[in-house]
Amino acid sequence: MNETITPEWVRRRAPLVHLITNYVTANDCANLLLAAGASPIMADDPLEAAEITSGCSSLVLNLGTLNPRHAEAMLLAGKEANRLGHPVLLDPVGIGASAFRADTAAGLLKQLRFSVIRGNLSEICRLAGIPARAHGVDVSAEAAQTDFCSLLAAVKRFSLSCGAVIIATGPTDLVVSGRQAAHLRNGHPMMSQITGSGCMLSALLGAYLGAAPDSPFEASVAAVSAMGLCGQLAAESRGTASFRMGLIDQMSLLSDAVWNGGKEIEFF
Amino acid sequence: MNETITPEWVRRRAPLVHLITNYVTANDCANLLLAAGASPIMADDPLEAAEITSGCSSLVLNLGTLNPRHAEAMLLAGKEANRLGHPVLLDPVGIGASAFRADTAAGLLKQLRFSVIRGNLSEICRLAGIPARAHGVDVSAEAAQTDFCSLLAAVKRFSLSCGAVIIATGPTDLVVSGRQAAHLRNGHPMMSQITGSGCMLSALLGAYLGAAPDSPFEASVAAVSAMGLCGQLAAESRGTASFRMGLIDQMSLLSDAVWNGGKEIEFF
Amino acid sequence: MNETITPEWVRRRAPLVHLITNYVTANDCANLLLAAGASPIMADDPLEAAEITSGCSSLVLNLGTLNPRHAEAMLLAGKEANRLGHPVLLDPVGIGASAFRADTAAGLLKQLRFSVIRGNLSEICRLAGIPARAHGVDVSAEAAQTDFCSLLAAVKRFSLSCGAVIIATGPTDLVVSGRQAAHLRNGHPMMSQITGSGCMLSALLGAYLGAAPDSPFEASVAAVSAMGLCGQLAAESRGTASFRMGLIDQMSLLSDAVWNGGKEIEFF
Repeated sequence: MNETITPEWVRRRAPLVHLITNYVTANDCANLLLAAGASPIMADDPLEAAEITSGCSSLVLNLGTLNPRHAEAMLLAGKEANRLGHPVLLDPVGIGASAFRADTAAGLLKQLRFSVIRGNLSEICRLAGIPARAHGVDVSAEAAQTDFCSLLAAVKRFSLSCGAVIIATGPTDLVVSGRQAAHLRNGHPMMSQITGSGCMLSALLGAYLGAAPDSPFEASVAAVSAMGLCGQLAAESRGTASFRMGLIDQMSLLSDAVWNGGKEIEFF
Repeated sequence: MNETITPEWVRRRAPLVHLITNYVTANDCANLLLAAGASPIMADDPLEAAEITSGCSSLVLNLGTLNPRHAEAMLLAGKEANRLGHPVLLDPVGIGASAFRADTAAGLLKQLRFSVIRGNLSEICRLAGIPARAHGVDVSAEAAQTDFCSLLAAVKRFSLSCGAVIIATGPTDLVVSGRQAAHLRNGHPMMSQITGSGCMLSALLGAYLGAAPDSPFEASVAAVSAMGLCGQLAAESRGTASFRMGLIDQMSLLSDAVWNGGKEIEFF
Repeated sequence: MNETITPEWVRRRAPLVHLITNYVTANDCANLLLAAGASPIMADDPLEAAEITSGCSSLVLNLGTLNPRHAEAMLLAGKEANRLGHPVLLDPVGIGASAFRADTAAGLLKQLRFSVIRGNLSEICRLAGIPARAHGVDVSAEAAQTDFCSLLAAVKRFSLSCGAVIIATGPTDLVVSGRQAAHLRNGHPMMSQITGSGCMLSALLGAYLGAAPDSPFEASVAAVSAMGLCGQLAAESRGTASFRMGLIDQMSLLSDAVWNGGKEIEFF
């Protein structure tokens, strides 16, 4: 494990992250990045997407509220990021909900190299073509069972075939890079009662990847655990809106000491 | 009155609501729906709008930050929802501010069947063609007077002519379904000092309608009172941003017992 | 100094502000305007932009998440506002990050008359063509030095050439109108750790300009100091999300007495 990738280390590197993302959670993503010491720039038009990307450390492509103009900008920015060797992350939001999103994701996967693909488990299964019986599997509850092993094997195959770190989030989170895998137990159920938990994590991954472009697995594990831990630390909130604010507050306050004491990562 | 439609009952049914809505308040609408136990999906492109709608329980069309692409998506999604028998709600935001919005609303009204139309009183009067002298009437202050009676009669005619429940919100709220009407006194003046009170109510109505598609009047009355009550419960907040968070917090905490004890609904 | 332009005076005038702005911070801008007693309307389509503007007191053009449709709407709305004598503000967000934004800003500057142009110091230098060595200069740290004097002279020339009040924000803020200038020391470092501090200030300037269209310099000074002071008053917040809420809360509570006691403005 690369010991250098920590919340304070990322904060000192202050990566600039280009996001082509949905308008529902764009504000939360921007504020979470700033809270983590990174800087966001949102730019979604084909007229400037590649140029914006060239000045950033990493690129995050999020399929929420997708339209053809954004899809074109994603392709242009992705190609430029690939050319420059910048990490690119795909968040296939709602890929199971429409052919347009599924086709766009398939096209991006075909034409771009991704450092990381992050979705909830059903989105990842959909994207990887993992059979429906595995959909909706709760990673946590099934951890000791055959289904989990066959799921993990399928995700590893997908990771090897596309060359990306695959992150499937849920009650617990799975980070898979080829034959390496980590199971992370940080997080809190309230994270599923707000919008943007997944989008914010993808944005945060953009920051960690931008700071450590050569260590996508280690950067991913660090980012996923940091996000989950902030959820735990915010869990004393009374309602869901306060929880969402608390989550971002905690990210702005997160120290290496708190992260080291709280992260729950199992490698296997 | 249908006694089954309560906050906890809606939460147990966990309806999935498709919103084609403005980017100013999209995040608040999504978070309010999650706080109420529903799930939001925002999708505004003609390429996927109808398909997204087909997988949801209800559809909310909000004219804020309107553009022609959204208007086309609204029509396609609305037709699909009508075909499937899903409830469709229209929120004619800013209909008095431009011909584009007024024309779009008129076109949607002509081509779609709405379960509910919700706006502030001046938007409803505009949409219904109720003469200008009634515009800006404060439902509450005028409740005992001729103006209120003639307004109510006009709204009833509009409801009968378009077959939708009509909701006119303001200091107090009016819910009219043909010859049925309810006057609701929940709410708080701070709701007018934040953006999105109206949009969030329309989103919440989408959830209640999705859970009870055959009882649009009862679902509307329940949703309007739940929203107003959460405003009252959040009113101890010191500033307007805290109030907005408090409103969503209260929705995430709202029990049937609190709602039954606090709702102020008068049928007539 | 025009003594009438105060937070309470603006609140009493309740200006309606048209914003063509980015979706990242649109919600914060709307809520800040409401907190200040103004009303926002966001409308970004060429089909309605000019008509919406005609019913408002002022127009704010913000280049974040720019696309060609918004750029066209900005030009149409700007021309209508110019024709009607409404104040127009330009916020050249990210003008240094792409040719598309720089070209759009240059086109708007050529075809419209602006009352105010507000950006951070590097955006203003870029727009004014002030040489790169002055970029990134910290107004505060350099206040006593030659660089500051030559910067100030360049900004004054830019203000005279385009006829607009120029506002360059940073650790301290500079407001320049031809030969008049003010240096403002309100504000707090946490304002740079949230997204939207600049956008919200531009929105607030829209409100103050809408209330006092004939006194753009005085209105600008009042708005910039009000915003900075609210940042100071919110600074006890523990994390950055709470700070952002606190900033808007403080704006909703700001009295003339607090503002008069706290503003730090030096004219020169």
